Amino acid sequence: MASRLVFSVCWFVLLLLLLSSVCGGRRLRGESTALTLESVRKFLTREEDSIVFSLIERAKYPCNAPAYDPSYLGRATKFHALSLVDLFVRETEAVQAKAGRYQNPVEIPFFPKDMTLPSVPPYDFPNELHAAAASVNVSNTIWRKYFDEWLPQITSQGDDGNYAPTAAADLVCLQALSRRIHYGRYVAEAKYREAPQDYNTAIRAKDRDALMKLLTFESQEDAVKRRVEEKAKVFGQDVTLGKRVDDSTNATNYKVDPMVVYRLYGDWVIPMTKMVQVEYLLRRLD
Amino acid sequence: MASRLVFSVCWFVLLLLLLSSVCGGRRLRGESTALTLESVRKFLTREEDSIVFSLIERAKYPCNAPAYDPSYLGRATKFHALSLVDLFVRETEAVQAKAGRYQNPVEIPFFPKDMTLPSVPPYDFPNELHAAAASVNVSNTIWRKYFDEWLPQITSQGDDGNYAPTAAADLVCLQALSRRIHYGRYVAEAKYREAPQDYNTAIRAKDRDALMKLLTFESQEDAVKRRVEEKAKVFGQDVTLGKRVDDSTNATNYKVDPMVVYRLYGDWVIPMTKMVQVEYLLRRLD
Repeated sequence: MASRLVFSVCWFVLLLLLLSSVCGGRRLRGESTALTLESVRKFLTREEDSIVFSLIERAKYPCNAPAYDPSYLGRATKFHALSLVDLFVRETEAVQAKAGRYQNPVEIPFFPKDMTLPSVPPYDFPNELHAAAASVNVSNTIWRKYFDEWLPQITSQGDDGNYAPTAAADLVCLQALSRRIHYGRYVAEAKYREAPQDYNTAIRAKDRDALMKLLTFESQEDAVKRRVEEKAKVFGQDVTLGKRVDDSTNATNYKVDPMVVYRLYGDWVIPMTKMVQVEYLLRRLD
Repeated sequence: MASRLVFSVCWFVLLLLLLSSVCGGRRLRGESTALTLESVRKFLTREEDSIVFSLIERAKYPCNAPAYDPSYLGRATKFHALSLVDLFVRETEAVQAKAGRYQNPVEIPFFPKDMTLPSVPPYDFPNELHAAAASVNVSNTIWRKYFDEWLPQITSQGDDGNYAPTAAADLVCLQALSRRIHYGRYVAEAKYREAPQDYNTAIRAKDRDALMKLLTFESQEDAVKRRVEEKAKVFGQDVTLGKRVDDSTNATNYKVDPMVVYRLYGDWVIPMTKMVQVEYLLRRLD
């Protein structure tokens, strides 16, 4: 009886190993998958660099209005209602979906309806999120606010014809901002795991205000805003030999105005990340 | 007779205006199209920032070997001989070609055979290059050297499954490096215009060594190498509040080793740009 049990267990383990090999599933190597407040903080800090780099690279090109004007393509293609950027992002996201980008729940596409299925073997990304809450999605707001409000503040007037590189630079900005803001799901999960009792009452009462209060640490937010402002100064300066960035440098010397990056975070990125956290927590007990 | 002449001239001007409007041609606005040594220097200096940013962003992900291994896709697609990065770059370049990226002669695709025609109106980019020499192309060498030699030096060992973002980051590096190296055509043209008599004898004699000697300014190259090393330090540091980058900081604190960036420029980017200049000049009188 005992030997049959051992035999069955061995078969089961073998079957699991075979399945995992056939599916091509791979685990993260050399890295812990544990979500902690420390790992969350590290991720968000590194994302700040990506966001600032992406804004500086977008600011290399002027506004390039035709890229956003549906009438620009109207004459040349059948897509009358779509701008070059709309089409460009849809088609680039389709290529990236095929290559498996959105298998990782950290990445969220702007046009999920246009997605092709991945052509790559499935990858076993760690699933740290609570299933009922993972679907929180504010992509439409990110898209609208980026183009309507923030893009005009980081670009100069003008048209240099580089619409495709401009659209590619926009997509890198959008992906970095979306990853950061939607990472609010992971922030909320890490905070919830740390002290569920702090949140349960407010979640059950569906009390958004109470949750927002629990998630707000003004001194911490202030430090983040000042740090991204500093990053915009450090990364956006003209580096010359024998001269380091100087606080007295005039703002016009920076490739993107550091105060705009400060406000981008204060007025939008941080509040939106907190909104994602609240929405996530509201579904955390479903 | 005079009124008929005026009438004909008016018709001709109207016809020209109409043609220009139908073709949708747009000139660069608010920017001089004149190629000068100063404009070339400015372009190359700004490209250094793009190259360093792109390397730092690639270094965010580990090596991610499966993205470069054709057998990884072998099971899942019909493209046995191609890696995920091969396919990803081909398909992304096709999307960018459709959006008009390669109308600008500054941009050169890695897979020109897979190009779709632009779906956008033609843009009247300034054509500064000598027609017979504009086609100098070292994309294959850039591709090979980037993946075989430089990529292993900027990434850590490991596999985090983010193959699509990895491939996207590779493409941004490749595009920035290719734009910089192929800009050698513009550098050569600016130098030639400045003093054609300095180059004509060597060009007619097809004397590569003499041309290379004419194009080499060691102190200038040294300054560029030290500047990109400095940029890798400034852009690749962990920015924290109240602390500026410090020369004594250990190399392991930087996101990409500044010495690797120094060597990337010294051993490869600068020599390749000069090779492009020589090849361009050799065809300059054709």
